[in-house]
Amino acid sequence: MTFPAPLTGVVPPVCTPLTPDREVDVRSLLRLVDHLVEAGVHGLFLLGSTSEAAYLTDRQRRCVVEAVVAHVGGQLPVLAGAIDMTTPRVLDHVAAVTDAGADAVVVTAPFYTRTHPAEIARHYRLIAAASPAPVVAYDLPASVHTKLPSELVLELAAEGVLAGLKDSSGDLGGFRTVVTGARVDPDITGFSVLTGSELFVDSALALGADGAVPGLANVDPHGYVRLDALCRAGDWDRARAEQERLCALFGLVGVGDPARMGGSSSALGAFKAALYLRGVIECAATAEPQVSLSADEVGRVGKFLAAAGLL
Amino acid sequence: MTFPAPLTGVVPPVCTPLTPDREVDVRSLLRLVDHLVEAGVHGLFLLGSTSEAAYLTDRQRRCVVEAVVAHVGGQLPVLAGAIDMTTPRVLDHVAAVTDAGADAVVVTAPFYTRTHPAEIARHYRLIAAASPAPVVAYDLPASVHTKLPSELVLELAAEGVLAGLKDSSGDLGGFRTVVTGARVDPDITGFSVLTGSELFVDSALALGADGAVPGLANVDPHGYVRLDALCRAGDWDRARAEQERLCALFGLVGVGDPARMGGSSSALGAFKAALYLRGVIECAATAEPQVSLSADEVGRVGKFLAAAGLL
Amino acid sequence: MTFPAPLTGVVPPVCTPLTPDREVDVRSLLRLVDHLVEAGVHGLFLLGSTSEAAYLTDRQRRCVVEAVVAHVGGQLPVLAGAIDMTTPRVLDHVAAVTDAGADAVVVTAPFYTRTHPAEIARHYRLIAAASPAPVVAYDLPASVHTKLPSELVLELAAEGVLAGLKDSSGDLGGFRTVVTGARVDPDITGFSVLTGSELFVDSALALGADGAVPGLANVDPHGYVRLDALCRAGDWDRARAEQERLCALFGLVGVGDPARMGGSSSALGAFKAALYLRGVIECAATAEPQVSLSADEVGRVGKFLAAAGLL
Amino acid sequence: MTFPAPLTGVVPPVCTPLTPDREVDVRSLLRLVDHLVEAGVHGLFLLGSTSEAAYLTDRQRRCVVEAVVAHVGGQLPVLAGAIDMTTPRVLDHVAAVTDAGADAVVVTAPFYTRTHPAEIARHYRLIAAASPAPVVAYDLPASVHTKLPSELVLELAAEGVLAGLKDSSGDLGGFRTVVTGARVDPDITGFSVLTGSELFVDSALALGADGAVPGLANVDPHGYVRLDALCRAGDWDRARAEQERLCALFGLVGVGDPARMGGSSSALGAFKAALYLRGVIECAATAEPQVSLSADEVGRVGKFLAAAGLL
Repeated sequence: MTFPAPLTGVVPPVCTPLTPDREVDVRSLLRLVDHLVEAGVHGLFLLGSTSEAAYLTDRQRRCVVEAVVAHVGGQLPVLAGAIDMTTPRVLDHVAAVTDAGADAVVVTAPFYTRTHPAEIARHYRLIAAASPAPVVAYDLPASVHTKLPSELVLELAAEGVLAGLKDSSGDLGGFRTVVTGARVDPDITGFSVLTGSELFVDSALALGADGAVPGLANVDPHGYVRLDALCRAGDWDRARAEQERLCALFGLVGVGDPARMGGSSSALGAFKAALYLRGVIECAATAEPQVSLSADEVGRVGKFLAAAGLL
Repeated sequence: MTFPAPLTGVVPPVCTPLTPDREVDVRSLLRLVDHLVEAGVHGLFLLGSTSEAAYLTDRQRRCVVEAVVAHVGGQLPVLAGAIDMTTPRVLDHVAAVTDAGADAVVVTAPFYTRTHPAEIARHYRLIAAASPAPVVAYDLPASVHTKLPSELVLELAAEGVLAGLKDSSGDLGGFRTVVTGARVDPDITGFSVLTGSELFVDSALALGADGAVPGLANVDPHGYVRLDALCRAGDWDRARAEQERLCALFGLVGVGDPARMGGSSSALGAFKAALYLRGVIECAATAEPQVSLSADEVGRVGKFLAAAGLL
Repeated sequence: MTFPAPLTGVVPPVCTPLTPDREVDVRSLLRLVDHLVEAGVHGLFLLGSTSEAAYLTDRQRRCVVEAVVAHVGGQLPVLAGAIDMTTPRVLDHVAAVTDAGADAVVVTAPFYTRTHPAEIARHYRLIAAASPAPVVAYDLPASVHTKLPSELVLELAAEGVLAGLKDSSGDLGGFRTVVTGARVDPDITGFSVLTGSELFVDSALALGADGAVPGLANVDPHGYVRLDALCRAGDWDRARAEQERLCALFGLVGVGDPARMGGSSSALGAFKAALYLRGVIECAATAEPQVSLSADEVGRVGKFLAAAGLL
Repeated sequence: MTFPAPLTGVVPPVCTPLTPDREVDVRSLLRLVDHLVEAGVHGLFLLGSTSEAAYLTDRQRRCVVEAVVAHVGGQLPVLAGAIDMTTPRVLDHVAAVTDAGADAVVVTAPFYTRTHPAEIARHYRLIAAASPAPVVAYDLPASVHTKLPSELVLELAAEGVLAGLKDSSGDLGGFRTVVTGARVDPDITGFSVLTGSELFVDSALALGADGAVPGLANVDPHGYVRLDALCRAGDWDRARAEQERLCALFGLVGVGDPARMGGSSSALGAFKAALYLRGVIECAATAEPQVSLSADEVGRVGKFLAAAGLL
């Protein structure tokens, strides 16, 4: 389908269910997609951080995009991450995911290498020039160790290089600069400004964001769809109550023992455990070398689900 | 050839010459290899940071390893980086580079994702279990944003998981802990401890390191080979003088204007400009999205070469 | 006066005007206080980062508190920073500023030293035990290089150790955790949760914050007082418009040339230049070793003021 | 006494013994000084990080300098830290410690505030202009969160602003740039380049450093004096053996449980526990809010001492 300009609403970064031997579990993946689509989400973002893109081989990445694109058949836009270190490597992923049917590609600043704003600009310009699909910038300093400057995002938006921004930086001030800047600049049209936060979707929409890409929407898509609708209706009190319920649920990302595992193992393990407990996917395995949650930690995920009315 | 246990001496991280349209310039690459081998280096490290591995596509990476392995024909050991974010992706590179003939693989901790010492240990154990060639750990916190703990390196060395360490952390204290620990632990034999520094190879060898992997050895391999020999002979005064000459030469990495480019563009651009000016490679281009040195900046590289007696 | 429980509304971190030879310009300071009080602010925060507390000697710090406390005569609460590295040194400042009449003290986590959550907790407990005035935690990771964990803030609030939080971390998710947690925990009463952001005061108040401590309120106190009133009235559309006007004005913090000075020199220099241009203070000097704005940069501050309708 | 140009040899950063109620234990302090002087150290550095300067009140800082200066009576040079955030506050400490008799002052870059190389240069120039005693730069990025650029240190040395550098950055490459630069620049004379490392004093002296300021020299001053003498005699093999013995001893800094305390609590607690176990000081207490070592952890300190032949 054509990528909407702008894309709005709830666009979950779709988890990638794995089998016990760490292959893509396509059946579970499509059940998860159905679970999201039936809840009313407005787009799907494949191969993001929540999708464990950093852990999937090129073959697995392609499998994910092909399976989902075929399954949804143009009902809603499908974005796909093209996550790699630099321009030439990203371009290979752009070719692969667009060939597999993605409607837009999502691209970070260069990482692993030392970079510079001039190089980040060059990176996006080269990618946009070569990509058959619109390019969405992915601001994820926790992974990339560089913050995308708001002014640069707006400059690239005005040039038509970028079609949108997924901002997972947690910096609402910089995010607002982009939202407001995109609104007032006559050279920018149809640009999508999406927050990657789980915790302040109401705030982001209130200040003018187009939508949200919350990892927790895998677990509770109905909640985020409801939240989005309440915000669009200007019913801020009920929006805030819904957001607070989701914030409490988000506590599940901390179930993993920090003496035993890192934050990704805990958060992605908890999302998958929740999907398993809710009956959406068949196996909660995360990719190597992540550490698995213990039975007790999975039990705590269950308590979060129960408290949020999801079990 | 069989990977030496331990590998000792000068092991340059080989630059990857590119054509003006950013394809691997195999002819220049092999001339560079000849330039290094004729100077007497003791091994070659392909697809490291200095090789722009982060910028090379999978096809280009394979091309580099195949060309060099075929060319050197077992005269000296060839190590190859398997640089990617996590275990499953690294394993694909391990298969590719060993299939192409590499004698050992060089692997960092997971990056882009949030990680944990337990996950780093699991990462190396899984890779060693699957790799047909020895695994050398690559400690590069400037890129990976995690420091490999010395105790973990020693633990994995004692288990036989790691065959060596390339330490580009700049932390001589932690490096020494590994050097001394590997010497005194009876469970550790044949483990190679290599410094990635250009600036204190004499110090590293004096405290017991096996060798060095200095990017600047592309430009002046004779200097590093001489330095290594002086250190092995215990001629510390002349070693220090040679090292200081190389330190002065290393100043060329700073020729790039920091208002216009990042540190990689400057340093890798300067190495390639020096190789071009010395007549070793045909084109000084660096990979996208790096910014090119100006004519004036290249002129300053020439002055460093002249001052070091290399022009 | 008694410190309100909770303190609500706009509490500017008051700039410290200096004479050309870098002494406290008490007359300008009191004119600035009048400018703020007449605009309707709800409290004053002395000796914070915006006040250049890090640059003021102990004698100057004391002078500031004594002068302002005497001048306002209990009309509104006066908070004072007790900014130093560790518990014993902070306690000396707590004694000094409360002796000088401050109604509450504002304290960061330990800095310069390496610290730990257990030590941060101990720090606040010891300070609260010794302080004659309520203690407000100051979360400022850009200066302190530690983020106050939300759970720890709530735990100390429930114990009665902390009377409030000034959150300048920029992390709205963590801020919300404290706001919501303080609301639902029956052991927490009268706790003030204040944002230090200039850019999303509307968002912070919408999700339940008690007030704001924006440095820019020195320059445009009427704007922030208006914004606060609109938020309290639930007039979110006009609040957003006012906030956006203030966001545009905040651009003045970037007038300083980053090749010539750091971010504090630019931002604090711009605040003082604006106060000078608005006729509030007599001299725009900032403390040593900050670099002064050029005439051209001061001219750009004037343009921001004009665009915001303040000249 | 006159500050030597250059100062050479072993200059321990003297621990500050405290009583159980956290007052300076002057009797223990002077016993510690005797323990160091009798071992043959070449200078004393008071009020550094190892001295817990960040935790001492102004009154306590003054007490330390006055007591030690009076006690050593000019037998050896006494340096004192003037550790505070910015120029005006540092200048107050410079006045206090020189008034108390310090022969030189040791000063970091500004911290807590955001800074810039131009501001760091201005900071040192203003302090040198006002200080009655020579100024030694203290490079401690772990505390200050800024690295002193080598070129700036050399520039200030050539101007006569700085009399020396204490480098605790761990970056031997940058350190070497200063050592070599100070040797070859005809405008620089009598400049002292001192490493703050415990772990590679032999390497630092081998490449031309003037001396060392190792915290561990509190515990084993004889070892560092021996190491210094072996290096000066060019007996590198025995120097390395002595250094390796000291490296093993340095392991005691890690006895504290990281789940329960930070790195300062562990390292400074271990130094003081060792001094207590060796009978030098009467009480091992560290300043608030540091966490105390457990009896078991103190027992592990004893084992390190025994292994190093110090009990």
